[in-house]
Amino acid sequence: MATFDITGVVQSLHQARHSWRQTQRRNSEAGNRAFPSRDALSSIIDCLKGVLFPMRLGPPDLRQESEDFHVAHALDASLHALLHQVKRELAYNANLRGEGHPVDEEALAAVRSFAAALPAIRTLLDSDVLAAYQGDPAARSVDEVLLCYPGVLAMIHYRLAHHLYTLGLPLLARIVSELAHSATGIDIHPGAQIGAGFFIDHGTGVVIGETAVIGQRVRVYQAVTLGAKRFPTDAEGNLQKGLPRHPVVEDDVVIYAGATILGRITLGKGAVIGGNVWLTHDVPAGGRVAQAESREGAQANGIGAS
Amino acid sequence: MATFDITGVVQSLHQARHSWRQTQRRNSEAGNRAFPSRDALSSIIDCLKGVLFPMRLGPPDLRQESEDFHVAHALDASLHALLHQVKRELAYNANLRGEGHPVDEEALAAVRSFAAALPAIRTLLDSDVLAAYQGDPAARSVDEVLLCYPGVLAMIHYRLAHHLYTLGLPLLARIVSELAHSATGIDIHPGAQIGAGFFIDHGTGVVIGETAVIGQRVRVYQAVTLGAKRFPTDAEGNLQKGLPRHPVVEDDVVIYAGATILGRITLGKGAVIGGNVWLTHDVPAGGRVAQAESREGAQANGIGAS
Amino acid sequence: MATFDITGVVQSLHQARHSWRQTQRRNSEAGNRAFPSRDALSSIIDCLKGVLFPMRLGPPDLRQESEDFHVAHALDASLHALLHQVKRELAYNANLRGEGHPVDEEALAAVRSFAAALPAIRTLLDSDVLAAYQGDPAARSVDEVLLCYPGVLAMIHYRLAHHLYTLGLPLLARIVSELAHSATGIDIHPGAQIGAGFFIDHGTGVVIGETAVIGQRVRVYQAVTLGAKRFPTDAEGNLQKGLPRHPVVEDDVVIYAGATILGRITLGKGAVIGGNVWLTHDVPAGGRVAQAESREGAQANGIGAS
Amino acid sequence: MATFDITGVVQSLHQARHSWRQTQRRNSEAGNRAFPSRDALSSIIDCLKGVLFPMRLGPPDLRQESEDFHVAHALDASLHALLHQVKRELAYNANLRGEGHPVDEEALAAVRSFAAALPAIRTLLDSDVLAAYQGDPAARSVDEVLLCYPGVLAMIHYRLAHHLYTLGLPLLARIVSELAHSATGIDIHPGAQIGAGFFIDHGTGVVIGETAVIGQRVRVYQAVTLGAKRFPTDAEGNLQKGLPRHPVVEDDVVIYAGATILGRITLGKGAVIGGNVWLTHDVPAGGRVAQAESREGAQANGIGAS
Amino acid sequence: MATFDITGVVQSLHQARHSWRQTQRRNSEAGNRAFPSRDALSSIIDCLKGVLFPMRLGPPDLRQESEDFHVAHALDASLHALLHQVKRELAYNANLRGEGHPVDEEALAAVRSFAAALPAIRTLLDSDVLAAYQGDPAARSVDEVLLCYPGVLAMIHYRLAHHLYTLGLPLLARIVSELAHSATGIDIHPGAQIGAGFFIDHGTGVVIGETAVIGQRVRVYQAVTLGAKRFPTDAEGNLQKGLPRHPVVEDDVVIYAGATILGRITLGKGAVIGGNVWLTHDVPAGGRVAQAESREGAQANGIGAS
Amino acid sequence: MATFDITGVVQSLHQARHSWRQTQRRNSEAGNRAFPSRDALSSIIDCLKGVLFPMRLGPPDLRQESEDFHVAHALDASLHALLHQVKRELAYNANLRGEGHPVDEEALAAVRSFAAALPAIRTLLDSDVLAAYQGDPAARSVDEVLLCYPGVLAMIHYRLAHHLYTLGLPLLARIVSELAHSATGIDIHPGAQIGAGFFIDHGTGVVIGETAVIGQRVRVYQAVTLGAKRFPTDAEGNLQKGLPRHPVVEDDVVIYAGATILGRITLGKGAVIGGNVWLTHDVPAGGRVAQAESREGAQANGIGAS
Repeated sequence: MATFDITGVVQSLHQARHSWRQTQRRNSEAGNRAFPSRDALSSIIDCLKGVLFPMRLGPPDLRQESEDFHVAHALDASLHALLHQVKRELAYNANLRGEGHPVDEEALAAVRSFAAALPAIRTLLDSDVLAAYQGDPAARSVDEVLLCYPGVLAMIHYRLAHHLYTLGLPLLARIVSELAHSATGIDIHPGAQIGAGFFIDHGTGVVIGETAVIGQRVRVYQAVTLGAKRFPTDAEGNLQKGLPRHPVVEDDVVIYAGATILGRITLGKGAVIGGNVWLTHDVPAGGRVAQAESREGAQANGIGAS
Repeated sequence: MATFDITGVVQSLHQARHSWRQTQRRNSEAGNRAFPSRDALSSIIDCLKGVLFPMRLGPPDLRQESEDFHVAHALDASLHALLHQVKRELAYNANLRGEGHPVDEEALAAVRSFAAALPAIRTLLDSDVLAAYQGDPAARSVDEVLLCYPGVLAMIHYRLAHHLYTLGLPLLARIVSELAHSATGIDIHPGAQIGAGFFIDHGTGVVIGETAVIGQRVRVYQAVTLGAKRFPTDAEGNLQKGLPRHPVVEDDVVIYAGATILGRITLGKGAVIGGNVWLTHDVPAGGRVAQAESREGAQANGIGAS
Repeated sequence: MATFDITGVVQSLHQARHSWRQTQRRNSEAGNRAFPSRDALSSIIDCLKGVLFPMRLGPPDLRQESEDFHVAHALDASLHALLHQVKRELAYNANLRGEGHPVDEEALAAVRSFAAALPAIRTLLDSDVLAAYQGDPAARSVDEVLLCYPGVLAMIHYRLAHHLYTLGLPLLARIVSELAHSATGIDIHPGAQIGAGFFIDHGTGVVIGETAVIGQRVRVYQAVTLGAKRFPTDAEGNLQKGLPRHPVVEDDVVIYAGATILGRITLGKGAVIGGNVWLTHDVPAGGRVAQAESREGAQANGIGAS
Repeated sequence: MATFDITGVVQSLHQARHSWRQTQRRNSEAGNRAFPSRDALSSIIDCLKGVLFPMRLGPPDLRQESEDFHVAHALDASLHALLHQVKRELAYNANLRGEGHPVDEEALAAVRSFAAALPAIRTLLDSDVLAAYQGDPAARSVDEVLLCYPGVLAMIHYRLAHHLYTLGLPLLARIVSELAHSATGIDIHPGAQIGAGFFIDHGTGVVIGETAVIGQRVRVYQAVTLGAKRFPTDAEGNLQKGLPRHPVVEDDVVIYAGATILGRITLGKGAVIGGNVWLTHDVPAGGRVAQAESREGAQANGIGAS
Repeated sequence: MATFDITGVVQSLHQARHSWRQTQRRNSEAGNRAFPSRDALSSIIDCLKGVLFPMRLGPPDLRQESEDFHVAHALDASLHALLHQVKRELAYNANLRGEGHPVDEEALAAVRSFAAALPAIRTLLDSDVLAAYQGDPAARSVDEVLLCYPGVLAMIHYRLAHHLYTLGLPLLARIVSELAHSATGIDIHPGAQIGAGFFIDHGTGVVIGETAVIGQRVRVYQAVTLGAKRFPTDAEGNLQKGLPRHPVVEDDVVIYAGATILGRITLGKGAVIGGNVWLTHDVPAGGRVAQAESREGAQANGIGAS
Repeated sequence: MATFDITGVVQSLHQARHSWRQTQRRNSEAGNRAFPSRDALSSIIDCLKGVLFPMRLGPPDLRQESEDFHVAHALDASLHALLHQVKRELAYNANLRGEGHPVDEEALAAVRSFAAALPAIRTLLDSDVLAAYQGDPAARSVDEVLLCYPGVLAMIHYRLAHHLYTLGLPLLARIVSELAHSATGIDIHPGAQIGAGFFIDHGTGVVIGETAVIGQRVRVYQAVTLGAKRFPTDAEGNLQKGLPRHPVVEDDVVIYAGATILGRITLGKGAVIGGNVWLTHDVPAGGRVAQAESREGAQANGIGAS
């Protein structure tokens, strides 16, 4: 008797796949559609980090006089690799829509635009690094911030992903975001718009939604949610996509740890939102919102949460 | 003079281990007991992902016509590797109980049962993927959901781990769960029971306890806790193990971000629990629970949390 | 026409770096300053885990009779590798202060002190492992706790990082902490002081600040923050560094999930802090603080948070 | 001053490439022609070794009951990988001839033929293994021969390469041969025809030319050459390709170490050729040829060769 | 239609294996016999090189004060790994003889003996290194000889392999020898006996047979064969194994490149054998043998060998 | 009882090293002298192959338009890595001579000279590739020659190694040569002088000595030795180094397989040396030398060589 009934399980799994594909109206060709590769994007983003910050995130033994040689080579290699992934997404998306049109020109235009945006992205990231350095009493140098802070890592991914998103590449953008989410616990949707000088401290549990709009010099702490309050549905009950449903956060706002800000509300310039607050209405410029203090001895039998 | 006093530190560490082992009444033989290997289980689970979803989580260049060849080979290899780890856990557990009985037959039976369950696990996971696709306005395709959503990754690990748990392999189950916990921030105890079509969005900070029971088509968001309110102790003050102590969540419930649900309470079918709520009592079917809104200006000196 | 305008983008990036460096008053030499390497520290810490717990975190096939051979070799290799990183931090710090003094003696003294502390660190970690084993009804053995619990992983990193911090090596300490933060979602500042027998369950989202002081046998759950309430500034509005600004937690305190404890307050011996509480004032020894219960039906339009 | 004049050397190298390409009448498109990959073929051949001898050259932990699962998977994967390389060679060859015709059908037919030939190749290789086992007094088992003898490794490569050669794929065939040449020092041209039961002992320095024809049960030792005596040229002095120019070796011939056999001569059935002989004429069936013995004291000043 | 007929080829290969196993009278159990692993031995030998020469062939950053820590650890690890391979060979050999007796005690004794021999092997290798340094006018230092000379690499493998051979482990010995053969083109049978101070220059094509006996301070050059003249057969025509059939080479003999020395002859102390000679009879102590010079113009049509 | 007496063997090995070092008059400092690293040089040479032939030996997916970006980056990286190795050799050599002078300037000058020579080396290698293409009737394209011919691989290593040799870096040169020797069985001393258009066919066993001088368009086959006849000694019996002792081979000479050419003789322009000849005197321009033919039936009992 064989150790395991491999053949039997293979057949049952085959049947399970077949049922799923029939339900999903997928034929075998569709099953062959290439999806962008998470591993490939991970390598591309790592390479682009070295393009943006060659002395700190490039090869460990790079010398400053050689920066441009490294940048040119790494940029060339990563753009061509990205081009390949962009073609995959465009072909996949066309396939989803039942089209089969050629995507090469469109892909090339997208990657060229992405390449041209990199210097501006670097400048934005410099502002984020500076914000972290200035906003954290524990930070000793900008190098420390760039190399050690998970919030900065999340912003590098976000700023690259956001540009991919604006180029009509939501899958690539999402994968780039999820790579940072897994490493940092910070989940920024690439569709969000975030101004210069953004600083996330600690970061675990932060969620920023697709239509959030964030001004300059905003600071948030761990476990802050900028979410949607509800999902509007159309007359037939289907979710309506793309509607503005996340907060607008104006310049110089600070949001402390664990605050939950929901819906298309506006936090006015300079507002300060306290930790753990639950907020679904506008706050005027300069306003302050805080959580009610917990009191000793209350509801002694409701104490645990493990 | 030597750079470091290696010999001295080695001796002190030797002594520290010796003291610990004496305290723990461990002899040298016990110290050799093989524990299941996290690295080995990580490889096995990666391989099983390709068995369950060969075209999406198998080798990048797999063709649909070759699926069964890949599945048969990968299934065979991963089951034998799993058999080795199962023997380790059974021997380890027997050793803990002071027994030394042979474990080979028991291990073989467990892995055969596990193998036979894989097609049903695939079907359950299909329902989870579909739930995510239908529940998130941002999802564009089931492929995107399967490949990008941390909640789906956590469910693949959970559904495999849960079957190991029911087979009497709690260590293997725990390791499989912790692998997903580290990658996603989602901590589902493998003992929990979760029905079809479960969807976790964003996910960071979700904790689901060992005796939780969750129905079909339930949806939860980031930082939701389904926990125990307290740990009952027996007459001698020892923790009583295995008692039902986590919530029962019936079909079609939705629990928004940051909600904390504690104790053996029941959330009735279709209930909606708002974000950040703190809940330790039953909610009837169709009930709605929400957090009190935070108010501007309150307690201005209690605002920060960094 | 070339596929991409590599030369043009390289020049723009060069200009962006140049602007940044001018703003930061960095000259080319400064740009060459070696920073401690995250990859190198990751390897060193992995090696030290095997030094501290050779049979469980050392090579998978180690035999107990060979423990000391492994420990001596791995200790020797990791201390020399650490010495190299310590020199990098000391030189970097001296450079920040505009000094250029030799660092070799200072580095050697620091690593010798670190080496001598390892046996005591092992003993402290044994107390943490025991606390986890005794504090979690689901734990079956101390091996399981050591190998599977993210809270224990975080404590291994913390206790090593804390000693580096006390030796005047805050960058190395921070990198070691962030490695655990990324793997577990637990963010313990290496400056915090934590007594024996500390147990963090689940752990995702825990944040413990730089000046927190924690006694013996303390237990905390996921998403607990021990933070600062505000950052005092001096007469010119600059952040004042190093002031005690995080809580003091005395022996035997328990803090349940999601609690936010802010400021230089004291939680007295044996206090119990309930889940999700928001706390900015002292709690006496043996005190209990709990969250107000959420009520059904309240504010039905404020329910979602996604 | 920069450490190295990178830009200057890059320009000079650019010029050197440009000159070469002009001389070779290569335009930039030609320069992009993909050549078959040595690394890819190395992986394919390693995989095919496991297809042919799964228990000995397949995965180290394969069990006999799982052989067919492994073989099916590895065969499927290696044939598809080979198909990719075959297309490269066919496209390259068409390009060399100035054609651009599609190659997909031709490539598919070639790989199908190759696949169908594998069982017969296995049987031939079994005869080679048996010949080595029977021909070497030191051989203890057929497993030892298969796993340890460089002559057997060379024959596995040769028999696969020869089939590729007969399918009109001389580049792939050559690469496969050179992989064995580098590992063993045995250089068998894939065009040679070699019957069953061929045994090469020691092997270093053996060279067997393109048009050599070798019967069954032939045995050769290290440093034997079966070469061409001269290269005939046509009226214009160009080398004439493809003419039979290497020896015919009939069944049961033995050729000892260092013998040099040149030209289209025939060594009759059962002939024995002594070590170090130099031979350019036919040898009848059963004939014996030996080297003149060296004598002591002769030409004492011509002794060294280092 | 499927791209390839995988199932058909798998069946034919299955049949080919089946036929072979029937011919070889192998049952399925025999097919599962574990053979020593070439990859494992390669790692073990690399590790032992660092045990023997820690500063030169050990880890690149080893410091002399740490040598013993490295040696102890590497020795411990490699001996245990070797023990595993020794058990495989002993079990395999017992199986070949139709026995099934336990091998653990025998294996342990063999590896203990091997371990005890390592210091003497190191001393012998020192004499070989010194011989190379003194024998080659181009050698600049003993380090260069140890690190760059293929002849020294071959001797390290030989001296380790020879000890395994004398312990009754001919398969392990053979694999160790073949690893060096592949890297250097030097094929020394582990059964050969070679005295101290042996030097092989260049080395490609050297073959030294199983029963060769070589004295002290002998020097040989590339392509030298110390072989058997014929293989004696018994009355039934079977090869007689183990008879002395290779040359005896006394102390201080020099053999120049390409010389072929065959049969159980003796080269007396201090004899000098010229390049390319063919020799099948004894040479007295101090004797000199040389090759006849080739003459210009002879046999102009027999000139090529390609 | 411990499995192995590790401590005892470690002590004996320690003693063996100590004895050797005393004999060699090495103190502990000398033992720490860094020697150039074979692994590092292997990487450097692989990188330089891509610098010299970017489209064929560079990254597999390089595009012609990106050649210069790749070349600049790879050249920069490999020159800096080479600089590090050059410093090691210079320091090692100075140490051998008992000096301790600084080597940085000298190292920099050497690597600058090496860099400047690369374009000329590329042009020489182009001539070698062309010679192989024109000289082998089986060659189909220059790409095949560059990618498949071991003789071309050996020449790339030789031409790089020779330049290192002329810069006073004999250790680096030797290591580069031995890397090719191991891969191809071709052993060219880096001191030899070889003109353009050199072609080695098959190559296994070729040895070319340190003071050999080879003209243009020379062709040699496998197992050809260009060696020294004897090593002159001075009045005290020490080997005299550096004297011209290997052949001078003028333009357009062909040397067939197995020929042994010894001593400072001259083979005149266009000479043809037959296979297996033994030659220790001059050959005039256009001369032809051939081996005496072996005859059937001679010395029937001297036939084998295995």
